[in-house]
Amino acid sequence: MKQLFITDVSPRDGLQNQALHLSTQDKRWLIEALSDSGIPRIEATSFVSPTGVPQMADAADLLAAVTGPASDKLCVLVPNSKGLFRAQDAGAREICVVLSATETMNQRNIRMGMAQAVSACLDVLQQAQEAGLRTRAYVAVAFACPFEGQTSPDLVMQLSKQMADAGADEVVIADTIGAAHPSQVSNLMGDLINTMGADRLGLHLHDTRGLGLANAWAAMQVGVNRFDSSAAGLGGCPFAPGAAGNLATEDLAWLAHESGYETGIDIPALLQVVEGLSMRLKKPLGGRSYAWLKQHFSKVSAEPHHALPGKQA
Amino acid sequence: MKQLFITDVSPRDGLQNQALHLSTQDKRWLIEALSDSGIPRIEATSFVSPTGVPQMADAADLLAAVTGPASDKLCVLVPNSKGLFRAQDAGAREICVVLSATETMNQRNIRMGMAQAVSACLDVLQQAQEAGLRTRAYVAVAFACPFEGQTSPDLVMQLSKQMADAGADEVVIADTIGAAHPSQVSNLMGDLINTMGADRLGLHLHDTRGLGLANAWAAMQVGVNRFDSSAAGLGGCPFAPGAAGNLATEDLAWLAHESGYETGIDIPALLQVVEGLSMRLKKPLGGRSYAWLKQHFSKVSAEPHHALPGKQA
Repeated sequence: MKQLFITDVSPRDGLQNQALHLSTQDKRWLIEALSDSGIPRIEATSFVSPTGVPQMADAADLLAAVTGPASDKLCVLVPNSKGLFRAQDAGAREICVVLSATETMNQRNIRMGMAQAVSACLDVLQQAQEAGLRTRAYVAVAFACPFEGQTSPDLVMQLSKQMADAGADEVVIADTIGAAHPSQVSNLMGDLINTMGADRLGLHLHDTRGLGLANAWAAMQVGVNRFDSSAAGLGGCPFAPGAAGNLATEDLAWLAHESGYETGIDIPALLQVVEGLSMRLKKPLGGRSYAWLKQHFSKVSAEPHHALPGKQA
Repeated sequence: MKQLFITDVSPRDGLQNQALHLSTQDKRWLIEALSDSGIPRIEATSFVSPTGVPQMADAADLLAAVTGPASDKLCVLVPNSKGLFRAQDAGAREICVVLSATETMNQRNIRMGMAQAVSACLDVLQQAQEAGLRTRAYVAVAFACPFEGQTSPDLVMQLSKQMADAGADEVVIADTIGAAHPSQVSNLMGDLINTMGADRLGLHLHDTRGLGLANAWAAMQVGVNRFDSSAAGLGGCPFAPGAAGNLATEDLAWLAHESGYETGIDIPALLQVVEGLSMRLKKPLGGRSYAWLKQHFSKVSAEPHHALPGKQA
């Protein structure tokens, strides 16, 4: 059976721009519940400036709090060497770095030009590798940039190659603002797979314009089998206008299961995570398939008292 | 440029199970507004029993009311010979018939077994052709049936061939309950195109489980270029539990436009139709991309030289 490897990014990409800040204990619940539902990797937090992103200020405490099988599945985002050192101190074993594929996005996001951003990224990758950490390198705004429009696929190919050559264990192509369409995804991801194979290549999709699952399917068709998604579709980059709405993990897992891919994810358990998140963030949440999945799995389960979706009914 | 031919079914499939019944004048507005937005064909109404589907009781009055270019784009659903005669009397020039691909669905929907349903369908097709009408034949519950589960692709192939051999101008494969997944769609539609070509083959998708656009994309990849969809995603078959939510025309048109297909549809004009529908049905409506499209196109019209995707909440 074909495998799909899903990294849930809701604790980081999802929570980082929520108005309501979850407590460290609630984040711990989220991470452990995601792990219990079968998610194989979880982007737990980021070691960014607590002033810039106060939602992530408890990064070190959170890593210390997570126990059990979940603690082996965590990766954390680091923006620079300082973040890397903090992550190392906190016991992180896998980090990710983010490089934007356009000049303006790098300027707006980290106040660096492209050349400087690439160099900083490569430095952090090298330092992380020397420290024995596993590494993921994101190429952000890889399809379109909110400031520059369409992103050059050639540049994305070049940056991806630089990150792969620098030894990144995984290169993740990110549609940060959810602006990609399926033929773009097929073309770019197909070219990347031809260059670097599928084993080290991931795709991070948003669903801003309703094309999330169509893009995921297009990518799966050219052989992509590593995806980021976010429970309940929670998320969006606070620095990228129009980025709201990650691809929902329940949507992706459902597409995968229906299409004969193994993900290791127990969908009813994942739906309970969405429900728990919704309760804690005090708002209705859930991906495109959520209402239907809730109803479907409550019918097939032996729990007649199980609540029907209250949200999109 | 590749063409996508979209039939909007909101006046029929969309309105037939709304609690609030639109007046004939409001339906006329809908049909003419859809036509003005560039939709090339519109499923206007059905000549079914006014007792069974009171929302469609004004079928003849509606056909008489529609004027202008829209009147050349209409097709109407007829359940049987009696419906066909009523449609003819009302001046219909294109009709569609529906044959369900499972025994139980035929029983529940029209109280006939499969053999009898096929025979009735072929009779109506022949009568319509003799009367000089253009014909479309739907094969419903073609991927899954709410009563029988997975539908046999071989049976769908066989029924489609029967309808094509009987001279149906178009055979439309319908995922009546929105249960198809993309690999199923690729396989069945690919096989059908190999057998009967793409020119007479359509696909009617629902979006019940969030897979509507992924299914559409999978179909486009194997060469399907004729689709049904419904403005605002309005619709769902009243006889099929779990069928709520047609594929939204604005979602499909947006996917098509983004992917380099020509549809002839002016998306901002289509968004105004959705808005008008929402007002008339007194509830919020819109497909998966609607909120984003509204924001996007209002910015595009305000700042024609620099269209940025807007920040979403």
